[in-house]
Amino acid sequence: MSEQHKIHTVVDIYGNTYKMVGTETSGHMRLVASMVDSRMREINALNPSLDQAKLAVLTASNAIHDYLKLKEQVEQLENEIKKLKE
Amino acid sequence: MSEQHKIHTVVDIYGNTYKMVGTETSGHMRLVASMVDSRMREINALNPSLDQAKLAVLTASNAIHDYLKLKEQVEQLENEIKKLKE
Repeated sequence: MSEQHKIHTVVDIYGNTYKMVGTETSGHMRLVASMVDSRMREINALNPSLDQAKLAVLTASNAIHDYLKLKEQVEQLENEIKKLKE
Repeated sequence: MSEQHKIHTVVDIYGNTYKMVGTETSGHMRLVASMVDSRMREINALNPSLDQAKLAVLTASNAIHDYLKLKEQVEQLENEIKKLKE
């Protein structure tokens, strides 16, 4: 992919600025950033003593957990489609 | 949920120890931890100047991005099932 096709988006997450570069739209990247920011604030409210690095690690863990659960759902749906097509 | 049904798992992510508490099996939590750890190491290899908090925030963003993409896939599969059942 050439540099000219990359989309640059500046987002703010938990008080820090990040320059995101990729193929996703700025709208998508801003949605991602706002979800990470909200989750960090939620986890901070529950564990106010955590430093920012640990807070972000727990946010990442939380997101990976949701990803794995959704992956199970995709597998179930794919199996259902397979059966419906038989 | 009573405290006795909660599962406690100690995991190591990027050199720090975290005590995870929840309803998921220890195996699931260790998988989550190892995925977060691997992604942090991958992102660090690409951006060695990032501090650990920013590295974890980018890891969380990466995971939320994957989650949203999978969510689109779930919606597509659900639509496909709906059509197959018509």
